[in-house]
Amino acid sequence: MTGPKIDFYFEFASPYGYLASTQIEDLGARHGREVVWHPIMLGAAFKETGARPLMQTPLKGSYLRRDVPRFARLLGVPFREPPVMPANSLAASRAFVWLETDDRQLAKRLAQTIFHAHWGAGRDIGAPEQVAEIAAPLGIERSALLAALADPSIKDRLKQATAAAIERGVFGSPFIFVDGEPFWGADRLAQIDAWLTRGSW
Amino acid sequence: MTGPKIDFYFEFASPYGYLASTQIEDLGARHGREVVWHPIMLGAAFKETGARPLMQTPLKGSYLRRDVPRFARLLGVPFREPPVMPANSLAASRAFVWLETDDRQLAKRLAQTIFHAHWGAGRDIGAPEQVAEIAAPLGIERSALLAALADPSIKDRLKQATAAAIERGVFGSPFIFVDGEPFWGADRLAQIDAWLTRGSW
Repeated sequence: MTGPKIDFYFEFASPYGYLASTQIEDLGARHGREVVWHPIMLGAAFKETGARPLMQTPLKGSYLRRDVPRFARLLGVPFREPPVMPANSLAASRAFVWLETDDRQLAKRLAQTIFHAHWGAGRDIGAPEQVAEIAAPLGIERSALLAALADPSIKDRLKQATAAAIERGVFGSPFIFVDGEPFWGADRLAQIDAWLTRGSW
Repeated sequence: MTGPKIDFYFEFASPYGYLASTQIEDLGARHGREVVWHPIMLGAAFKETGARPLMQTPLKGSYLRRDVPRFARLLGVPFREPPVMPANSLAASRAFVWLETDDRQLAKRLAQTIFHAHWGAGRDIGAPEQVAEIAAPLGIERSALLAALADPSIKDRLKQATAAAIERGVFGSPFIFVDGEPFWGADRLAQIDAWLTRGSW
Protein backbone atom coordinates (compact mmCIF):
# COMPACT_ATOMS: atom_id res chain seq x y z
CA MET A 1 0.00 0.00 0.00
CA THR A 2 2.43 2.64 -1.18
CA GLY A 3 0.50 4.93 -3.53
CA PRO A 4 -1.66 7.88 -2.45
CA LYS A 5 -4.80 6.83 -0.64
CA ILE A 6 -8.22 6.49 -2.25
CA ASP A 7 -11.04 8.42 -0.55
CA PHE A 8 -14.30 6.49 -0.57
CA TYR A 9 -17.34 8.56 0.44
CA PHE A 10 -20.61 6.73 0.94
CA GLU A 11 -24.06 6.88 2.53
CA PHE A 12 -25.22 3.71 4.31
CA ALA A 13 -28.75 4.26 2.95
CA SER A 14 -27.44 4.22 -0.63
CA PRO A 15 -27.63 0.89 -2.48
CA TYR A 16 -24.96 2.03 -4.94
CA GLY A 17 -22.76 2.86 -1.95
CA TYR A 18 -23.22 -0.76 -0.88
CA LEU A 19 -22.41 -2.13 -4.34
CA ALA A 20 -19.20 -0.06 -4.46
CA SER A 21 -18.30 -1.08 -0.90
CA THR A 22 -18.14 -4.70 -2.01
CA GLN A 23 -15.53 -3.88 -4.69
CA ILE A 24 -13.46 -0.93 -3.50
CA GLU A 25 -11.05 -2.76 -1.17
CA ASP A 26 -10.05 -5.28 -3.85
CA LEU A 27 -9.73 -2.47 -6.36
CA GLY A 28 -7.42 -0.52 -4.05
CA ALA A 29 -5.38 -3.60 -3.14
CA ARG A 30 -4.82 -4.52 -6.81
CA HIS A 31 -3.16 -1.13 -7.28
CA GLY A 32 -1.38 -0.92 -3.91
CA ARG A 33 -3.67 1.83 -2.66
CA GLU A 34 -5.16 2.07 0.79
CA VAL A 35 -8.86 3.01 0.80
CA VAL A 36 -10.07 5.51 3.41
CA TRP A 37 -13.78 5.13 4.14
CA HIS A 38 -15.92 8.22 4.81
CA PRO A 39 -19.60 7.77 5.75
CA ILE A 40 -21.62 10.93 5.12
CA MET A 41 -25.20 12.05 5.61
CA LEU A 42 -26.25 12.44 2.00
CA GLY A 43 -29.40 14.39 2.88
CA ALA A 44 -27.19 17.40 3.65
CA ALA A 45 -25.73 17.29 0.11
CA PHE A 46 -29.22 16.85 -1.34
CA LYS A 47 -30.11 20.21 0.19
CA GLU A 48 -27.44 21.74 -2.06
CA THR A 49 -28.43 19.94 -5.24
CA GLY A 50 -32.18 19.75 -4.69
CA ALA A 51 -32.02 15.98 -5.19
CA ARG A 52 -34.42 13.53 -3.56
CA PRO A 53 -33.76 9.95 -2.53
CA LEU A 54 -34.00 7.91 -5.75
CA MET A 55 -36.45 5.40 -4.33
CA GLN A 56 -38.91 8.19 -3.55
CA THR A 57 -38.69 9.70 -7.05
CA PRO A 58 -41.32 8.79 -9.68
CA LEU A 59 -39.91 6.61 -12.49
CA LYS A 60 -36.43 6.50 -10.90
CA GLY A 61 -37.72 4.50 -7.95
CA SER A 62 -39.03 1.69 -10.19
CA TYR A 63 -35.82 1.71 -12.21
CA LEU A 64 -33.71 1.50 -9.07
CA ARG A 65 -35.63 -1.56 -7.90
CA ARG A 66 -34.65 -3.28 -11.14
CA ASP A 67 -31.15 -1.89 -11.61
CA VAL A 68 -29.74 -2.54 -8.14
CA PRO A 69 -30.56 -6.28 -7.88
CA ARG A 70 -29.37 -6.72 -11.48
CA PHE A 71 -26.10 -4.93 -10.70
CA ALA A 72 -25.69 -7.04 -7.55
CA ARG A 73 -26.18 -10.26 -9.52
CA LEU A 74 -23.56 -9.12 -12.03
CA LEU A 75 -21.08 -8.49 -9.20
CA GLY A 76 -22.08 -11.74 -7.50
CA VAL A 77 -22.96 -10.06 -4.19
CA PRO A 78 -26.10 -10.68 -2.12
CA PHE A 79 -29.02 -8.26 -2.31
CA ARG A 80 -32.24 -8.10 -0.39
CA GLU A 81 -34.48 -5.04 -0.33
CA PRO A 82 -34.57 -3.51 3.17
CA PRO A 83 -37.92 -2.85 4.88
CA VAL A 84 -37.33 0.93 5.06
CA MET A 85 -35.82 2.92 2.19
CA PRO A 86 -34.07 5.21 2.59
CA ALA A 87 -33.05 4.08 6.04
CA ASN A 88 -32.08 6.56 8.72
CA SER A 89 -28.31 6.14 8.65
CA LEU A 90 -27.41 8.45 11.53
CA ALA A 91 -26.72 5.71 14.06
CA ALA A 92 -24.64 3.67 11.59
CA SER A 93 -22.58 6.68 10.53
CA ARG A 94 -22.01 7.85 14.10
CA ALA A 95 -20.91 4.36 15.11
CA PHE A 96 -18.29 4.48 12.36
CA VAL A 97 -17.08 7.95 13.37
CA TRP A 98 -16.78 6.82 16.98
CA LEU A 99 -14.79 3.68 16.15
CA GLU A 100 -12.39 5.10 13.62
CA THR A 101 -10.60 7.31 16.14
CA ASP A 102 -9.21 4.26 17.88
CA ASP A 103 -9.27 1.60 15.19
CA ARG A 104 -9.73 2.48 11.52
CA GLN A 105 -9.65 -1.15 10.42
CA LEU A 106 -12.40 -2.11 12.84
CA ALA A 107 -14.49 0.88 11.70
CA LYS A 108 -14.11 -0.31 8.12
CA ARG A 109 -15.13 -3.85 9.07
CA LEU A 110 -18.15 -2.41 10.87
CA ALA A 111 -19.12 -0.43 7.74
CA GLN A 112 -18.88 -3.57 5.62
CA THR A 113 -20.92 -5.52 8.17
CA ILE A 114 -23.62 -2.83 8.32
CA PHE A 115 -23.77 -2.60 4.51
CA HIS A 116 -24.18 -6.36 4.22
CA ALA A 117 -26.82 -6.51 6.97
CA HIS A 118 -28.79 -3.68 5.38
CA TRP A 119 -28.51 -4.35 1.64
CA GLY A 120 -27.32 -7.96 1.55
CA ALA A 121 -29.67 -9.34 4.20
CA GLY A 122 -32.41 -6.70 4.09
CA ARG A 123 -32.22 -5.64 7.76
CA ASP A 124 -33.16 -2.16 8.92
CA ILE A 125 -30.35 -0.08 10.46
CA GLY A 126 -32.38 2.93 11.58
CA ALA A 127 -32.41 2.35 15.36
CA PRO A 128 -29.30 2.50 17.56
CA GLU A 129 -30.26 -0.90 18.97
CA GLN A 130 -30.23 -2.39 15.48
CA VAL A 131 -26.74 -1.06 14.80
CA ALA A 132 -25.55 -2.35 18.19
CA GLU A 133 -26.90 -5.82 17.34
CA ILE A 134 -25.16 -5.81 13.95
CA ALA A 135 -21.92 -4.61 15.58
CA ALA A 136 -21.88 -7.15 18.42
CA PRO A 137 -20.33 -10.08 16.46
CA LEU A 138 -17.30 -7.83 15.80
CA GLY A 139 -16.71 -7.60 19.55
CA ILE A 140 -18.05 -4.06 19.78
CA GLU A 141 -19.56 -3.58 23.19
CA ARG A 142 -23.24 -2.69 23.12
CA SER A 143 -23.41 -0.19 25.98
CA ALA A 144 -20.25 1.65 24.87
CA LEU A 145 -21.64 1.93 21.34
CA LEU A 146 -25.03 3.19 22.50
CA ALA A 147 -23.36 5.77 24.74
CA ALA A 148 -21.19 6.97 21.85
CA LEU A 149 -24.24 7.36 19.57
CA ALA A 150 -25.67 9.87 22.06
CA ASP A 151 -22.38 11.74 22.54
CA PRO A 152 -22.61 15.33 21.21
CA SER A 153 -18.93 15.31 20.15
CA ILE A 154 -19.56 12.27 17.93
CA LYS A 155 -22.62 13.94 16.43
CA ASP A 156 -20.54 17.04 15.71
CA ARG A 157 -17.73 15.07 14.13
CA LEU A 158 -20.11 13.44 11.64
CA LYS A 159 -21.71 16.79 10.87
CA GLN A 160 -18.30 18.32 10.19
CA ALA A 161 -17.16 15.36 8.09
CA THR A 162 -20.31 15.70 5.96
CA ALA A 163 -19.80 19.45 5.55
CA ALA A 164 -16.16 18.89 4.55
CA ALA A 165 -17.23 16.30 1.98
CA ILE A 166 -19.76 18.67 0.41
CA GLU A 167 -17.11 21.40 0.43
CA ARG A 168 -14.92 18.99 -1.56
CA GLY A 169 -17.73 18.52 -4.12
CA VAL A 170 -19.34 15.30 -2.90
CA PHE A 171 -23.06 15.16 -3.78
CA GLY A 172 -23.81 11.46 -4.27
CA SER A 173 -22.99 7.98 -3.07
CA PRO A 174 -20.55 6.46 -3.74
CA PHE A 175 -18.18 9.32 -4.46
CA ILE A 176 -14.53 8.45 -4.87
CA PHE A 177 -11.39 10.56 -5.16
CA VAL A 178 -8.30 9.06 -6.78
CA ASP A 179 -5.28 11.35 -7.04
CA GLY A 180 -7.64 14.31 -6.57
CA GLU A 181 -9.84 13.13 -9.44
CA PRO A 182 -13.56 12.81 -8.56
CA PHE A 183 -15.61 9.79 -9.64
CA TRP A 184 -19.33 9.52 -8.87
CA GLY A 185 -21.21 6.25 -8.87
CA ALA A 186 -20.70 2.52 -8.57
CA ASP A 187 -20.61 2.53 -12.37
CA ARG A 188 -17.32 4.48 -12.31
CA LEU A 189 -15.37 1.61 -10.72
CA ALA A 190 -14.16 0.36 -14.10
CA GLN A 191 -12.98 3.89 -14.97
CA ILE A 192 -11.16 4.13 -11.63
CA ASP A 193 -9.48 0.82 -12.42
CA ALA A 194 -8.40 2.21 -15.80
CA TRP A 195 -7.21 5.44 -14.14
CA LEU A 196 -5.07 3.53 -11.64
CA THR A 197 -3.70 1.25 -14.35
CA ARG A 198 -2.73 3.98 -16.81
CA GLY A 199 -1.96 6.77 -14.38
CA SER A 200 -4.66 9.08 -15.80
CA TRP A 201 -5.58 9.23 -19.49
CA MET B 1 -29.35 -8.02 -37.67
CA THR B 2 -31.62 -10.87 -36.61
CA GLY B 3 -32.23 -10.42 -32.88
CA PRO B 4 -34.87 -8.17 -31.30
CA LYS B 5 -34.15 -4.50 -31.78
CA ILE B 6 -32.48 -2.26 -29.22
CA ASP B 7 -34.38 0.94 -28.33
CA PHE B 8 -32.05 3.87 -27.80
CA TYR B 9 -33.73 6.93 -26.21
CA PHE B 10 -31.73 10.12 -26.03
CA GLU B 11 -31.90 13.90 -25.63
CA PHE B 12 -29.68 15.93 -27.99
CA ALA B 13 -28.87 18.34 -25.14
CA SER B 14 -27.51 15.48 -23.02
CA PRO B 15 -23.73 14.92 -23.12
CA TYR B 16 -24.15 11.35 -21.91
CA GLY B 17 -26.62 10.81 -24.74
CA TYR B 18 -23.84 11.91 -27.08
CA LEU B 19 -21.27 9.60 -25.50
CA ALA B 20 -23.63 6.64 -25.82
CA SER B 21 -24.50 7.61 -29.41
CA THR B 22 -20.86 7.11 -30.40
CA GLN B 23 -20.91 3.50 -29.11
CA ILE B 24 -24.42 2.11 -29.52
CA GLU B 25 -24.30 1.21 -33.23
CA ASP B 26 -21.09 -0.82 -32.85
CA LEU B 27 -22.51 -2.45 -29.75
CA GLY B 28 -25.68 -3.46 -31.57
CA ALA B 29 -23.78 -4.66 -34.65
CA ARG B 30 -21.47 -6.87 -32.55
CA HIS B 31 -24.54 -8.72 -31.32
CA GLY B 32 -26.55 -8.68 -34.55
CA ARG B 33 -29.08 -6.22 -33.16
CA GLU B 34 -30.54 -3.25 -34.99
CA VAL B 35 -30.66 -0.06 -32.92
CA VAL B 36 -33.76 2.13 -33.17
CA TRP B 37 -33.04 5.75 -32.25
CA HIS B 38 -35.63 7.79 -30.32
CA PRO B 39 -34.96 11.47 -29.61
CA ILE B 40 -37.06 12.78 -26.73
CA MET B 41 -37.56 16.10 -24.97
CA LEU B 42 -36.11 15.26 -21.58
CA GLY B 43 -37.60 18.34 -19.94
CA ALA B 44 -40.99 16.63 -20.05
CA ALA B 45 -39.61 13.67 -18.08
CA PHE B 46 -37.92 16.04 -15.64
CA LYS B 47 -41.38 17.39 -14.78
CA GLU B 48 -42.23 13.88 -13.54
CA THR B 49 -39.04 13.31 -11.55
CA GLY B 50 -38.40 16.88 -10.37
CA ALA B 51 -34.91 16.69 -11.89
CA ARG B 52 -33.04 19.70 -13.25
CA PRO B 53 -30.48 19.80 -16.03
CA LEU B 54 -27.23 18.57 -14.44
CA MET B 55 -25.19 21.52 -15.66
CA GLN B 56 -27.51 23.91 -13.82
CA THR B 57 -27.33 21.98 -10.56
CA PRO B 58 -24.87 23.06 -7.83
CA LEU B 59 -21.97 20.61 -7.37
CA LYS B 60 -23.24 18.32 -10.16
CA GLY B 61 -22.53 20.97 -12.80
CA SER B 62 -18.84 21.16 -11.86
CA TYR B 63 -18.57 17.39 -11.74
CA LEU B 64 -20.19 17.07 -15.16
CA ARG B 65 -17.65 19.45 -16.67
CA ARG B 66 -14.90 17.13 -15.48
CA ASP B 67 -16.59 13.77 -16.00
CA VAL B 68 -17.82 14.23 -19.56
CA PRO B 69 -14.50 15.26 -21.18
CA ARG B 70 -12.73 12.52 -19.21
CA PHE B 71 -15.29 9.95 -20.38
CA ALA B 72 -14.91 11.20 -23.97
CA ARG B 73 -11.11 10.84 -23.80
CA LEU B 74 -11.51 7.29 -22.51
CA LEU B 75 -13.79 6.45 -25.45
CA GLY B 76 -11.51 8.29 -27.87
CA VAL B 77 -14.28 10.56 -29.17
CA PRO B 78 -14.05 14.33 -29.62
CA PHE B 79 -15.52 16.66 -27.04
CA ARG B 80 -15.90 20.40 -26.97
CA GLU B 81 -18.18 22.25 -24.57
CA PRO B 82 -21.05 23.93 -26.44
CA PRO B 83 -21.75 27.64 -25.94
CA VAL B 84 -25.26 27.02 -24.53
CA MET B 85 -26.00 24.22 -22.08
CA PRO B 86 -28.51 22.78 -22.05
CA ALA B 87 -29.26 23.59 -25.67
CA ASN B 88 -32.81 23.90 -26.92
CA SER B 89 -33.14 20.59 -28.74
CA LEU B 90 -36.62 21.06 -30.20
CA ALA B 91 -35.44 21.79 -33.75
CA ALA B 92 -32.97 18.91 -33.78
CA SER B 93 -35.53 16.44 -32.44
CA ARG B 94 -38.24 17.59 -34.83
CA ALA B 95 -35.84 17.27 -37.76
CA PHE B 96 -35.24 13.66 -36.79
CA VAL B 97 -38.95 12.90 -36.43
CA TRP B 98 -39.64 14.43 -39.83
CA LEU B 99 -36.90 12.46 -41.59
CA GLU B 100 -37.49 9.06 -40.05
CA THR B 101 -40.89 8.58 -41.69
CA ASP B 102 -39.25 8.35 -45.09
CA ASP B 103 -35.71 7.25 -44.31
CA ARG B 104 -34.78 5.85 -40.90
CA GLN B 105 -31.12 5.43 -41.85
CA LEU B 106 -30.84 9.06 -42.92
CA ALA B 107 -32.54 10.20 -39.72
CA LYS B 108 -29.98 8.20 -37.73
CA ARG B 109 -27.11 9.74 -39.68
CA LEU B 110 -28.58 13.17 -39.03
CA ALA B 111 -28.74 12.43 -35.29
CA GLN B 112 -25.09 11.36 -35.29
CA THR B 113 -24.13 14.47 -37.25
CA ILE B 114 -26.03 16.77 -34.87
CA PHE B 115 -24.54 15.07 -31.82
CA HIS B 116 -21.02 15.48 -33.22
CA ALA B 117 -21.59 19.10 -34.20
CA HIS B 118 -22.99 19.93 -30.77
CA TRP B 119 -20.81 17.94 -28.37
CA GLY B 120 -17.83 17.02 -30.55
CA ALA B 121 -17.33 20.42 -32.20
CA GLY B 122 -19.07 22.65 -29.63
CA ARG B 123 -21.67 24.18 -31.97
CA ASP B 124 -25.06 25.38 -30.79
CA ILE B 125 -28.10 23.55 -32.19
CA GLY B 126 -30.83 25.73 -30.69
CA ALA B 127 -32.01 27.56 -33.82
CA PRO B 128 -33.72 25.88 -36.80
CA GLU B 129 -31.17 27.60 -39.08
CA GLN B 130 -28.32 25.96 -37.16
CA VAL B 131 -29.87 22.52 -37.55
CA ALA B 132 -30.44 23.17 -41.26
CA GLU B 133 -26.79 24.11 -41.69
CA ILE B 134 -25.62 20.96 -39.89
CA ALA B 135 -28.02 18.84 -41.99
CA ALA B 136 -27.05 20.32 -45.37
CA PRO B 137 -23.93 18.14 -45.98
CA LEU B 138 -26.18 15.05 -45.75
CA GLY B 139 -28.16 16.34 -48.74
CA ILE B 140 -31.11 17.42 -46.62
CA GLU B 141 -32.75 20.35 -48.31
CA ARG B 142 -32.78 23.50 -46.19
CA SER B 143 -36.21 24.90 -47.05
CA ALA B 144 -37.94 21.52 -46.75
CA LEU B 145 -36.36 21.03 -43.34
CA LEU B 146 -37.33 24.49 -42.10
CA ALA B 147 -40.90 23.96 -43.29
CA ALA B 148 -41.07 20.62 -41.49
CA LEU B 149 -39.84 22.18 -38.24
CA ALA B 150 -42.85 24.49 -38.27
CA ASP B 151 -45.34 21.76 -39.19
CA PRO B 152 -47.85 21.13 -36.36
CA SER B 153 -48.08 17.41 -37.20
CA ILE B 154 -44.30 17.05 -36.69
CA LYS B 155 -44.50 18.92 -33.40
CA ASP B 156 -47.30 16.60 -32.29
CA ARG B 157 -45.42 13.50 -33.28
CA LEU B 158 -42.42 14.47 -31.14
CA LYS B 159 -44.71 15.31 -28.22
CA GLN B 160 -46.41 11.93 -28.51
CA ALA B 161 -43.10 10.08 -28.83
CA THR B 162 -41.85 11.78 -25.67
CA ALA B 163 -45.05 10.96 -23.78
CA ALA B 164 -44.81 7.33 -24.91
CA ALA B 165 -41.19 7.17 -23.74
CA ILE B 166 -42.10 8.50 -20.28
CA GLU B 167 -45.00 6.05 -20.15
CA ARG B 168 -42.43 3.32 -20.76
CA GLY B 169 -40.34 4.55 -17.81
CA VAL B 170 -37.76 6.73 -19.57
CA PHE B 171 -36.53 9.58 -17.32
CA GLY B 172 -32.94 10.18 -18.41
CA SER B 173 -30.58 10.21 -21.36
CA PRO B 174 -29.41 7.83 -22.65
CA PHE B 175 -32.05 5.27 -21.78
CA ILE B 176 -31.82 1.92 -23.51
CA PHE B 177 -34.13 -1.09 -23.66
CA VAL B 178 -32.70 -4.49 -24.52
CA ASP B 179 -35.17 -7.37 -24.56
CA GLY B 180 -37.52 -5.23 -22.45
CA GLU B 181 -34.79 -4.61 -19.88
CA PRO B 182 -34.19 -0.90 -19.05
CA PHE B 183 -30.68 0.51 -18.78
CA TRP B 184 -30.06 4.17 -17.82
CA GLY B 185 -26.83 5.96 -18.57
CA ALA B 186 -23.78 5.84 -20.80
CA ASP B 187 -22.13 3.95 -17.96
CA ARG B 188 -24.49 1.00 -18.53
CA LEU B 189 -23.07 0.18 -21.98
CA ALA B 190 -20.70 -2.43 -20.55
CA GLN B 191 -23.62 -4.06 -18.74
CA ILE B 192 -25.66 -4.06 -21.95
CA ASP B 193 -22.74 -5.75 -23.69
CA ALA B 194 -22.68 -8.38 -20.93
CA TRP B 195 -26.46 -8.78 -21.17
CA LEU B 196 -26.31 -9.35 -24.93
CA THR B 197 -23.39 -11.75 -24.59
CA ARG B 198 -24.86 -13.92 -21.85
CA GLY B 199 -28.56 -13.57 -22.70
CA SER B 200 -29.42 -11.98 -19.33
CA TRP B 201 -27.73 -12.98 -16.06
